[in-house]
Formats: sequence, structure tokens, C-alpha cells
Amino acid sequence: MYDLIIIGAGPAGLSAAVYGRRAGLDLAVIEQTPMSGGQVLNTYEVDNYLGMPGISGFDLGMKFREHADKMNVSFLKERVTAVHDNGQSKTVETASGASYEAKSLILATGAEHALLQVPGEAQWKGRGVSYCATCDGAFFKGRDVAVVGGGDVAVEDAVYLARMCRKVYLIHRRDSLRAAKILQERLFACENVEVLWHCTVSKIYGGDLVEGVTLYHKQEDKEIDLAVEGVFIAVGMHPCTEAFAGVVSCDEKGYLIAGEDCVTNVPGVFAAGDIRTKSLRQIVTAVADGACAVTSVEKYLAGM
Amino acid sequence: MYDLIIIGAGPAGLSAAVYGRRAGLDLAVIEQTPMSGGQVLNTYEVDNYLGMPGISGFDLGMKFREHADKMNVSFLKERVTAVHDNGQSKTVETASGASYEAKSLILATGAEHALLQVPGEAQWKGRGVSYCATCDGAFFKGRDVAVVGGGDVAVEDAVYLARMCRKVYLIHRRDSLRAAKILQERLFACENVEVLWHCTVSKIYGGDLVEGVTLYHKQEDKEIDLAVEGVFIAVGMHPCTEAFAGVVSCDEKGYLIAGEDCVTNVPGVFAAGDIRTKSLRQIVTAVADGACAVTSVEKYLAGM
Repeated sequence: MYDLIIIGAGPAGLSAAVYGRRAGLDLAVIEQTPMSGGQVLNTYEVDNYLGMPGISGFDLGMKFREHADKMNVSFLKERVTAVHDNGQSKTVETASGASYEAKSLILATGAEHALLQVPGEAQWKGRGVSYCATCDGAFFKGRDVAVVGGGDVAVEDAVYLARMCRKVYLIHRRDSLRAAKILQERLFACENVEVLWHCTVSKIYGGDLVEGVTLYHKQEDKEIDLAVEGVFIAVGMHPCTEAFAGVVSCDEKGYLIAGEDCVTNVPGVFAAGDIRTKSLRQIVTAVADGACAVTSVEKYLAGM
Repeated sequence: MYDLIIIGAGPAGLSAAVYGRRAGLDLAVIEQTPMSGGQVLNTYEVDNYLGMPGISGFDLGMKFREHADKMNVSFLKERVTAVHDNGQSKTVETASGASYEAKSLILATGAEHALLQVPGEAQWKGRGVSYCATCDGAFFKGRDVAVVGGGDVAVEDAVYLARMCRKVYLIHRRDSLRAAKILQERLFACENVEVLWHCTVSKIYGGDLVEGVTLYHKQEDKEIDLAVEGVFIAVGMHPCTEAFAGVVSCDEKGYLIAGEDCVTNVPGVFAAGDIRTKSLRQIVTAVADGACAVTSVEKYLAGM
């Protein structure tokens, strides 16, 4: 019986592991992929984690893992299929058929960006294809970029990018946006934003870096080449909560409901990082969650 | 007229500066001390900022500042005496007689630990004298330590330290604790904690590092030498909010009332880091606040 099992080894899970070991907890981290770091690993460059300007995502993920290794954290390479709340103990089941017991759990499996699933998307990911304007926008100062989507995030991204990019194309498949009216007003007030209606992306192309996207205009039934150096894909996110369904309460988008103390509706089960309801999903807010979640775990264990 | 003025150059303020510059905001940071980094600078070793294990507080503060410098952040060495909310603009007045205008403000002046004000406290600060058990407890594994205080934080610190230290003395001047009953129960359940009632610290002594404290037992009117390697002082904290009094709403302890989005009761004025109401005051939670505060600033500016 562990004091704590942390599910997920991204920034939130690794930070929780470091704080948990420093607090003297007997803990294990369960991660399904061979590498720790989560989404960070696939980021070309991270320039907003304070103290480490311009570090590659891969290197940052490695540094995070090394920090946990220095604290003698146990890692289990397993895919979690289900968790059960038995009151004083929690059971974690994995695809290998193993099960683990702990007094408390931190769920930190993060979220995934929905993909466009077009040719070139995977190839230029991190080299012009981005899923986060706040993270990567600054790399495209003075350049022409495209944003794909029509919801709040896509419109916010386009407005954000309009302040630093030369030209922003918003590519949307319909003739109206789903985004909130106030966001749309801000969008239409940006002189360097052009909305390309009725268009879908059929492929992304380039050399070493992205050079453009090919669009398909449905009404005119023709293909259009658009020269851009950045493609920001904002077609939704999915929290990775399959294994926790029915155990922890979610909001309408599937995020686990928890405040900055990471406390969920289930005593002894905490949610940290991108998986929880929060306003800003960034590396540093995930790392902060790891610290806050462990503090909540300690309070929970002390009161058992 | 700046888009944003950030007051304070600790982890929250510097993170806000980095995020703000990346978002293309015209901003300045006002800091009264010659060095950036805030409380971090006076920390001997920081071992829980993910990715930078075992770094000295001084070096971490320097790295934080260097990151901001890379983003061409303007720093003004001034002591802020007052801020005024004029609706669309905010005025910041300083001790030099200067005043600055901005569309938005991030207040990030942090908090200070109350001092014991006894001989040796300043001399061994960071070399055995600590104001944060969560931060520094792990450095005292297997050692004997003292905690000074009688409130919630002192008792929580003693319980936390009892898990890793050999012996924990809780030094309290009265014959009963102010801490919550449930915390007291946890304290009295720890076999390696001894409460020294009616005692005050008259001095801290040591060589290169702390070696002990001299106590004064009021009822018996005698001095007692206690050999400990760590002294955790938990006699209160004071948020640094003098300049903001009457402008932003505070809780009963003086912290500016704001959630994790750093939004205060004054539109366009945001509170980030130790200065705001929050459950865990750590370097990484302050850095996260810097990011969240700028995101809130951007939303505010876009809606002006």
C-alpha cells in the first residue's frame, strides 16, 4: 500500500513526485509511455518556463525527469485502465493485469489536442505546426500564420497572434463562427486578420519548416495554396480521463472538476495539470498544480 | 501610458514580465530593491522548482532575471508609495516623486515572514534558520530541529518535519496553542515531537551552520540551551500591501483577494504570487500566477 500513486509523468505528475518525496511520502508514478514529460516532449522550443529561456521541449522533459530521479521516485511503465475508490484505499488497475493500492491518488494524465488529421500535420509538428498560440506565438513575430478552427480558442488565438504576426488567416469550414460574440467583435476589429470561410485544410507542406497549407474551398470546389510559416490548430482538446470515468466528477467538456487545491469530489483523489478545470493550461501551471496537489494529499493523509 | 505595469520583481513579477512581453505588451516592472528575485534570493538552496534540482536561491533569482532581460523587459528601480484607479488608466506613484500611467497593473510585491528579532537570526538565515518547512524541511532529514510559534503554520510545520527529522521541538511562549484543534491532535500524536511551553528564543548560535538555540523559560526564570541544526520560525507573515491599501480588497490577514486567475475587485488590477489569497505559497505557484495574471490582463485589455 503506497501513500500516494501519481498517474501520469508530465510536468504536473513529475512536480507532484518531487514534492511528494520531499514530504517523505512512499509513492509511485505510473506512466504508459516510455518517456516522461508529456506534451512538453513534442514541443520544439519552450521559452516561457521561467529560468530556462529557449530550451527545447525534449531537453526540458528530460530535466524534469532527472529531477524526479534525484528524489528516488519509483516509475511503473503501465497503462492505467481503471481506478476504484474503496474509501481508505484506492485501487489502480492496469492493462497488464496488475493492480496497485494507495491511500491517495493524483490524476495527472493531462489532455490531448484534437488533430486535424491531414497530411503534413505530424511531419511539421513543432516546426511550424502548433497547438498553442500562447506557447509558440512569439516565434512567429512579423510572419504570416494561419489559425484553424471556429470556436473560442481559435478566435482568441487569432486575436493574440494578430498583435505580433504580420498577417493572420483564420480558416473555418462554415460561414459563421461558434466563438462568443465579444470574441468575434475583437477578431473583426483586427486589420491584419482575414477569415477564409468555407475552407478546410487538405494538407500542410514545407521544407525544413512549414511553408504553407493547401485549402479546399467547398462552395467553389477548388484548392487554394496559402503561404504561411505557422499553422495553429485549435479544433478542440480532449482531457485524458477514460480510466477515471464514473469515479471523479467532470465538467461538460470532460475535465475533472477541481480548483487550484486540486481537490476533487472524491476524498483522497486529486486532479493536477491540464486534466482539471482551469483557465490557463501551461507547463508552469501544471508544475504548480503538482505542488498544490501534494499539499492537499498531505492534509488528507494527516486527517485519515 | 504602458499597457501594463508590474509592481515587484520576484518570481511572480518576473514570470508576468516574460509572459507579458511574449504577448506583445508594452510593459515595465517596478522594483524597489537593487536585485530581482524577491524572497528566493535569500534562500540557501531551492530543491523543488522542477527542472533545477539543488540550485542556490541566489542563482535561481539571477536566472529568473536573465530570462526577463532576454525579453527586453524595462525595469524601474523605484519604491511604490501608492496606486490610483482612474478607470481606463491606473497611476503608480513612487517615493522619488515620479508617477507612471498604465492601462493595467499586476501587484506582485509578495509577503514577508515576521522575524523573531533575536541575535543570530539574521546571521544564520539560510544556514539553519528557515521560514518555510515545505521548502527546507528535506535538508534536515534525520536531524534535530526546533519550530518556533503556536499557530496553525507552526503546528503544521512541526507535524511535517516530524516525518523526516529525528526530533522536533516546538517552542511556544504560552501554555496552550492557538492552532486548530485537529492540528493539535495530529501534533500530539507525533512521538518525536516535544512541546516546550512557556519558552521564548533568546538567541540562535552556531559556527558555519546553526548548532542550537538558547531558550528563556519564563515561569522558571532560567535559560536552556537546546542543540538543534534547524530553526523553523513560524510566527506569521505579512503581505506587502501598504501601497495598495484602500484600493484593492483584502482578507482579514491583509492578503489581496484574488483566485487563480489573479482577478481582484478592481477591473484592470491583478494580484499575483504570495500577495494574493491562496493555499500554497511556493516559488512555482508564484511563477504560475505570473502567467495567469497576464492572461487575465490580455482579456481585460481586449475588452477595453
